Amino acid sequence: MAKRSFWAWGMEKDEPTLEQRREKAAALSAQYGVAVEATPVPKIADLNLRKPRISAPPSISAYCSTDTHERAVHSYGRSFTDRIKAFNLQFPNPPDVVAFPRNEHEVERVMHWCWGEGYAVIPYGGGSSTVGGIEPPENFDGVVTIDLGALNQVLEIDELSRSALIQAGVYGPALEDQLRPHGFTLRHFPQSFEFSTLGGWIATRSGGHYATNHTHIDDFVESTRMVTPMGIWESRRLPGSGAGPSPDRLVLGSEGTLGIITEAWMRIQVRPKFRASAGVAFPSFEAGAGGARQVVQSKLWPANCRLLDPDEAATAAGLDGAHALLVIGFESSDLPQGEFMRQAVAIARDAGGTVDDDSIIISDEPGRTTGREGSVGAWRDSFINAPYQRNISTGLGLVEDTLETAVTWDQWPRLDAAVRQAIQEAMDRSCRGGTVTCRFTHVYPDGPAPYFTFAGFGRRGGELEAHQEIKKAASEAIMASGGTITHHHAVGRLHKPWYQEESPDVFLEVLRAAKRRVDDRGVMNPGVLFDP
Amino acid sequence: MAKRSFWAWGMEKDEPTLEQRREKAAALSAQYGVAVEATPVPKIADLNLRKPRISAPPSISAYCSTDTHERAVHSYGRSFTDRIKAFNLQFPNPPDVVAFPRNEHEVERVMHWCWGEGYAVIPYGGGSSTVGGIEPPENFDGVVTIDLGALNQVLEIDELSRSALIQAGVYGPALEDQLRPHGFTLRHFPQSFEFSTLGGWIATRSGGHYATNHTHIDDFVESTRMVTPMGIWESRRLPGSGAGPSPDRLVLGSEGTLGIITEAWMRIQVRPKFRASAGVAFPSFEAGAGGARQVVQSKLWPANCRLLDPDEAATAAGLDGAHALLVIGFESSDLPQGEFMRQAVAIARDAGGTVDDDSIIISDEPGRTTGREGSVGAWRDSFINAPYQRNISTGLGLVEDTLETAVTWDQWPRLDAAVRQAIQEAMDRSCRGGTVTCRFTHVYPDGPAPYFTFAGFGRRGGELEAHQEIKKAASEAIMASGGTITHHHAVGRLHKPWYQEESPDVFLEVLRAAKRRVDDRGVMNPGVLFDP
Repeated sequence: MAKRSFWAWGMEKDEPTLEQRREKAAALSAQYGVAVEATPVPKIADLNLRKPRISAPPSISAYCSTDTHERAVHSYGRSFTDRIKAFNLQFPNPPDVVAFPRNEHEVERVMHWCWGEGYAVIPYGGGSSTVGGIEPPENFDGVVTIDLGALNQVLEIDELSRSALIQAGVYGPALEDQLRPHGFTLRHFPQSFEFSTLGGWIATRSGGHYATNHTHIDDFVESTRMVTPMGIWESRRLPGSGAGPSPDRLVLGSEGTLGIITEAWMRIQVRPKFRASAGVAFPSFEAGAGGARQVVQSKLWPANCRLLDPDEAATAAGLDGAHALLVIGFESSDLPQGEFMRQAVAIARDAGGTVDDDSIIISDEPGRTTGREGSVGAWRDSFINAPYQRNISTGLGLVEDTLETAVTWDQWPRLDAAVRQAIQEAMDRSCRGGTVTCRFTHVYPDGPAPYFTFAGFGRRGGELEAHQEIKKAASEAIMASGGTITHHHAVGRLHKPWYQEESPDVFLEVLRAAKRRVDDRGVMNPGVLFDP
Repeated sequence: MAKRSFWAWGMEKDEPTLEQRREKAAALSAQYGVAVEATPVPKIADLNLRKPRISAPPSISAYCSTDTHERAVHSYGRSFTDRIKAFNLQFPNPPDVVAFPRNEHEVERVMHWCWGEGYAVIPYGGGSSTVGGIEPPENFDGVVTIDLGALNQVLEIDELSRSALIQAGVYGPALEDQLRPHGFTLRHFPQSFEFSTLGGWIATRSGGHYATNHTHIDDFVESTRMVTPMGIWESRRLPGSGAGPSPDRLVLGSEGTLGIITEAWMRIQVRPKFRASAGVAFPSFEAGAGGARQVVQSKLWPANCRLLDPDEAATAAGLDGAHALLVIGFESSDLPQGEFMRQAVAIARDAGGTVDDDSIIISDEPGRTTGREGSVGAWRDSFINAPYQRNISTGLGLVEDTLETAVTWDQWPRLDAAVRQAIQEAMDRSCRGGTVTCRFTHVYPDGPAPYFTFAGFGRRGGELEAHQEIKKAASEAIMASGGTITHHHAVGRLHKPWYQEESPDVFLEVLRAAKRRVDDRGVMNPGVLFDP
């Protein structure tokens, strides 16, 4: 059976070849003017993990593993830091046991064992966390990671209400495969889609396919079911309610601190048949931001409304490096989208955007594919490939990552300047320079969600310190400029200090009290989100 | 200065005349075949309230009142039960003191006094609660109602982000009056609009103007600020975030149990210039439900998409009593709405609906008013007038009320039948029959929000028992049919048993723990939402 890579994004087959790494090393040498050597990638056989400190009792051992590869895969998410540490075979604190329960009852049994013994429990979906969301905590006598991968079924589809009861451990592609024969889709496509799960999306408030209106997984949750140390937490399946604080909104973003999500009723959709897309060029990022703002404030609610700054537009879509690109897309299962696109383009042109009439693709014939051609298609390919690209350069000294936020329009220019400056200055100090670019992944009537990408060349072996310095500078700039520490990458350990800064103090006390009530021994995913 | 009526909906001038009551009594006599006598309405002079048990200390007494009229007005909301009790001069447990703080600091001072003494604190917005949300609890030595009415200003407008910082005590009309000169509107129009406040809407998750997409006040909240016994709870102003559980979502629906909301940044809108509306007739309520479902599932997101059953369509819009009416409305500040309406009408017609082309009103000339003509206009008038109409019949023996829920489409037919039957049977027992009708106030892709109106003629003096029996039967039917106990009327005391039934047990424990942490003496609006 195909195995996940213990250090790279994807499967073992997705690990880069030495030849790929040599090419990359040569390119980096040329780009940064330093000698770069293409070291070989690590092998699992070279890995000596600490022996498991605990062992599962017979009652649950049938679905518990202490296999080295499994423990290694479940030691880290896939952040820059995670990949570097794993690449360097640094696994000082792996989970002792990885459990693969086959149903909710088995989830409960593993949790109860851990709760009884005081072992830490880490819920694991696809392991794609980039914020240290699934790594074993220190200071526990034992750590058990519960991999939900076997809870991978769409259990029920309500075609009339367009909703489905889905197990939390299902990966993106398998979920879509099960909905497709019925003509449905969840249409939630985070960049981690291939290696993330429904439960992970809910636990971390994942950002999805839609750039406007319903952007987070939050909006597609009809009800949730979660195993907690206090018992099952199951909300009622409802299209809407105004009854007290919403229980689902406390599950959303809880990152395993209260329990393990096992299933959810999700709002699904009929697969789109009608589509329209266009790439509108703007003379500057600022001008493009004005265009994006006016399109989203018109409430046409395009599915795609992503703005690339001139550098990203050049790299991802071949523009001239001076123009920003606003990618607009509409789609519908029921209605031709041409008129919506014409209205959006008219707004974008009024705001100073340029687009040829013939490069506006309107497919009102059901079934025709759009959005995979021209500048729009180029952007899409680079989006999906980005994590694999980063495998190639891992450990070559490149310090590259992305970070994101959301901020109101009035504060955005200040935030954009401050974050770019903070990253640039930190790279100048730690990496002898580098590049920083930005795009909007989502836009709201009251503000954008800017997404920054940076890359600098650090000292090999000093990448982690450089990365930490850059990340800290960027996070502080985001906080000082009125942004949120994360729009859709979650909090985990990485963002915890700023999440605590951003959150109302009284609210943090409420979260702590909730945690103590539900998980009085503090065994559920200790270390993420907030300090106890 | 004009005074609020101490028993009726609205101001003292809105209290019905004896002549109006005589006419109504005669009509009821004819309708129900029983003698109905038009007793006069009560007078404040006839009211003997319990003497205040406590008095405000000098440090805050300047803005505290023990005036009889104020204490009476602040004793009840405006539910059927409240109006009957007030009409009958039953005021066994009025607040001892009504405070009118003029700023947030004074809110804190009143709260701290109460917290120190162990007096109950009741946050009061407009007093329009229909669920017992603002009435004094038993078992306290003193009860202080804090009326936020003086915190009534729009403090700041961010035109670029289309948001505004608004004080929580502002009433609907005053809020709109302050936004209008800037070309903005909050566009949140619950039926209580005239006598409810921003803070009340947030605390109770009010349902507003929009029938689809963004239906609750929740979606318009950018950040909140709340005074709690632990200090200020203020969230960051953000267009969107995925950082942990949302603090605002815990404020929304908290109904004063954690603190008093003093201000919020709200997403506002440019006033609509383009409008389109149509009333589509369907041969049955079921057929109309299919039409409403298909329109909302198309994601055209009409502002109005309200379905009236044949009885309501006859009463409110003059239809024949056999046809249901689907009222569809679009509006926009930026874009002509004709095409949207044409698409919606096409869907509704495909689903079996009928509408003449010339009764589809499309106003793509900025400024022209639509939606106030024909069947749509008739419905609108009856919506706004309904609470005043109920003043006239108060105390005549009529048992009339509304109740609402939301449920997925697959469960809806069963819920509709069960709730109608439960109400009808309860009215047959307690009221010698009566009528029950239904409309959808809001619709979602996965289900409608049905809103039931019932009226029966009870024994005078026995109205409260009859009402209670009907309400209980309806609530149990809603629970058994998979609905929520309230889509937008809030929980308060009235819905508490079923809210607790509907909520996950573990979640209720979390709410209780949150309450104990923030309000360790249990002084904040005791008795609503959940039992401690």
